[in-house]
Amino acid sequence: MAGSMMQAVVVTPGIKDSARLAEVPLEPLSGPGDVLVRTVRVGVCGTDAEINEGLYGEAPKGSPFLILGHESFGRVTQVGRDVRGLLPGDFVVAMVRRPDGCPNCLNGEQDMCLWGRYTERGIRGMHGFMAEYFIDQPQYLLKAPPAVAHVGVLVEPLSVVEKALRQAFEAQRRMLWRPRTALVLGAGPIGLLAAMLLRSQGLPTCVASRGPTASARAQLAQDAGARYVSLAETPLAELPRRAGETGGFDLIIEATGDSGVVMQAMGLMGTNGVVCLTSVTGGHNDVQVDASVLNQSIVLGNKAIVGSVNANVRDMRQAIADLAVFESVWPGLLGRMLSRRVPPADFGAALRRQPDDVKVVVEFGPE
Amino acid sequence: MAGSMMQAVVVTPGIKDSARLAEVPLEPLSGPGDVLVRTVRVGVCGTDAEINEGLYGEAPKGSPFLILGHESFGRVTQVGRDVRGLLPGDFVVAMVRRPDGCPNCLNGEQDMCLWGRYTERGIRGMHGFMAEYFIDQPQYLLKAPPAVAHVGVLVEPLSVVEKALRQAFEAQRRMLWRPRTALVLGAGPIGLLAAMLLRSQGLPTCVASRGPTASARAQLAQDAGARYVSLAETPLAELPRRAGETGGFDLIIEATGDSGVVMQAMGLMGTNGVVCLTSVTGGHNDVQVDASVLNQSIVLGNKAIVGSVNANVRDMRQAIADLAVFESVWPGLLGRMLSRRVPPADFGAALRRQPDDVKVVVEFGPE
Repeated sequence: MAGSMMQAVVVTPGIKDSARLAEVPLEPLSGPGDVLVRTVRVGVCGTDAEINEGLYGEAPKGSPFLILGHESFGRVTQVGRDVRGLLPGDFVVAMVRRPDGCPNCLNGEQDMCLWGRYTERGIRGMHGFMAEYFIDQPQYLLKAPPAVAHVGVLVEPLSVVEKALRQAFEAQRRMLWRPRTALVLGAGPIGLLAAMLLRSQGLPTCVASRGPTASARAQLAQDAGARYVSLAETPLAELPRRAGETGGFDLIIEATGDSGVVMQAMGLMGTNGVVCLTSVTGGHNDVQVDASVLNQSIVLGNKAIVGSVNANVRDMRQAIADLAVFESVWPGLLGRMLSRRVPPADFGAALRRQPDDVKVVVEFGPE
Repeated sequence: MAGSMMQAVVVTPGIKDSARLAEVPLEPLSGPGDVLVRTVRVGVCGTDAEINEGLYGEAPKGSPFLILGHESFGRVTQVGRDVRGLLPGDFVVAMVRRPDGCPNCLNGEQDMCLWGRYTERGIRGMHGFMAEYFIDQPQYLLKAPPAVAHVGVLVEPLSVVEKALRQAFEAQRRMLWRPRTALVLGAGPIGLLAAMLLRSQGLPTCVASRGPTASARAQLAQDAGARYVSLAETPLAELPRRAGETGGFDLIIEATGDSGVVMQAMGLMGTNGVVCLTSVTGGHNDVQVDASVLNQSIVLGNKAIVGSVNANVRDMRQAIADLAVFESVWPGLLGRMLSRRVPPADFGAALRRQPDDVKVVVEFGPE
C-alpha cells in the first residue's frame, strides 16, 4: 500500500470551509527508522474546526493542502529495519508537536518550546492523521495496550489534562500543599477528562459548565463521582458557597474556552490555591476587572495561575496508564465519551457541533 | 530594666493619625525561654502608614494600643536560663508572623498559613518593635553577624524578596527553566532589594518605576548593575522592546503597589515566563483587560503568575546571608538605602513620605 494513493480529510489553510475528502499519495516508507501506521480513528477538536474556519493551520512546506487531525489512534502495519520496540499489529498513538531545536526541545520538552518554531501534526507545518495511513518515527509513537484500544483516541486529549494537572502540582511544590477540593470549569472532553483524573486521585471535584443538569455531559461528570453545577442556574461567583467551599477551591482547572470565565476563575481560588488555564481563546474580549481585589487576593493568599498547552511524552505515557485506571474504576464511562462516530466521507458533519456531542471521532477502519 | 517603663511608638488601631510616643510597661522576662532585646532601629514601611491611617492593624487582646513596627533590628540584653544559641550582645532580627496551629503553621510555614488566624508583631494582635526593648522567643530571633549590623534592619524587607524569588523559581521547577532576563516593577525598598538579589545572581535586570532617571532610587538600581527605566518616559508596554527583549521577560517581580501595573505586568512575560506579585493593593480599581489576549498568551506560552506574601524563616536566614553578599559586591550600597533616620520622638515625620525616601528608619539606640 505504501507508494499508492489513500483517502484523507484535507484543508487549504486560510480558506474557510475548505475541508474535503481527497485522494492523496501515501509516501513510501523511506527510512529504515520509519513506521507505517494504519489509522483506526481520529478525534475531532475545536482546533480542527478553527482550521476549517480558515483562522488557523499551516500546510507542510510545498504542499497546497494540510491533512487534518491530531488526535490519533492506529495500528502499526510495517516497520523499517532499524525500528525496535514496535511490531506490526501494535496499537499506537502519535505525539502532535515536534521539536524545533531550541534548548527545551533538545531536552525533550517541545511542549515548553522556547523559540516557537515547533511543528504540529495536523495543525502547523506537518500533515495530520485523518488519512488511511500515516508514517512516523518510533520516538513519536506510544504503544497502547489492547485493553484501552477502544478509547485510545482519547490519549491525546487526556495527555493535555495530564500535563495541566502536573503543571499545577509542580508549581505548588513551592509549599506544603495538600489540595482538598477541586473545581473544573467546562464539561467538554478536556473538562470531563480532568474531572475523571481528579476523581481517580480521590479529590472531591465540582464540574461547572453552561449546559443543563440534564445532559449527557453532566451525567458523565456525575458518573465519575463529580458534582455537576450548571452555570445557567448558579452564577460563577456562587460556586464556592454552593460547593460548601466558602474559602474557595484549592485547585481549579479552567477548560471553558471563555476568557471571561478565565478572569472570574482567578477569584474562586482559596488560600494557597492554584488555577491551571488550559483553554485557548482567540480574538478579543474586553472585560472589567477589579485589579486591586484580584491582586490583593493573589498576594495575600500566596495563590498561583499557570498556563498549560500541549503535552510532554511523559504526559502521553501517563494518559495511556490512566485510561486503563479509568476503565477499571468506571467500566464503560470512557466509551460514552465517544458520542458520535462518522466515516471520513462525513467529515463535514463531524466538524459541525451537535448539542449532545462530547467527543466526535472519524472512523477510518476497524481496530 | 525589665519590669520598668519604656518609650514606644503606639497607635490605636482603627483611629486615623493615632500614632504617638508613649510610656509603656516593659514586661519582665517571665519565661526561662524568653530573650530580652534592646531595639537599635526599626524600619518604616507602607503597612505602618496604613495602620496609622486606621485602615489596618489590630491591638493585642486586652490592650488599648498596638506598638508599631515589624522591621526590627536589636541586640540581645538578657536571656532566660533555658535559652541556647543566643547570648547578650548578639545582634538579632525578629520574625513578624506567628503560627496559628494550622497544618502549614505546624510545619513551620506560617507564611503559607491556611487558617489565616496568624498574628503579626506590630501589625495584627501582637506588639511590634518600635520600643526601647522587646521580648521574644529564640525560635523567632535570627542572629545577624556584626558585619551587617549597620544594615540589619533590611533583613525583614529582603526576606520578603527572598521568598518571592524562591516562590517564582520553585513554581518554575515545573519545567527546564533558565531565566535570561528579569524585570522589576517598582523602585521602593522591595523593588531595589529585588534588583540587587537578581543582579547578585548574575541576571540582567531592568528596573522600571514612575520616578525620574535622575533620582536616588534610579541611582541605587544602576549602582547595583541594573538598567533603570522611568515609566514617566517609557510606557509599560514598550518595556520589552526598550530592554531589547521583544519576546518579553523571563522573570518579573511586581512591587509597585499599583494594581493597574499588576494587570499590565502579566502581558510583559515571555514564553515560559513567570510574574511574582508582591505588592498589596487595598481598595478597588476597575480596569479594562483584554481577557482573550491575556488568557491565550498565558496558555500558549506556559506562563505563570504567583503571589507571595511575608517570608519563611529560611528566607530570613537567606536574607542575612545575602546582605553580606551585597555588602561585598557593592560596598556601601545597602547603607544608602537607609535614606532617613529619625528619633522615636519624630515618628510622625518618619510616617510622612518625602520625595527622596528609600527606607526610613526610627533609631532607638546605638548599635
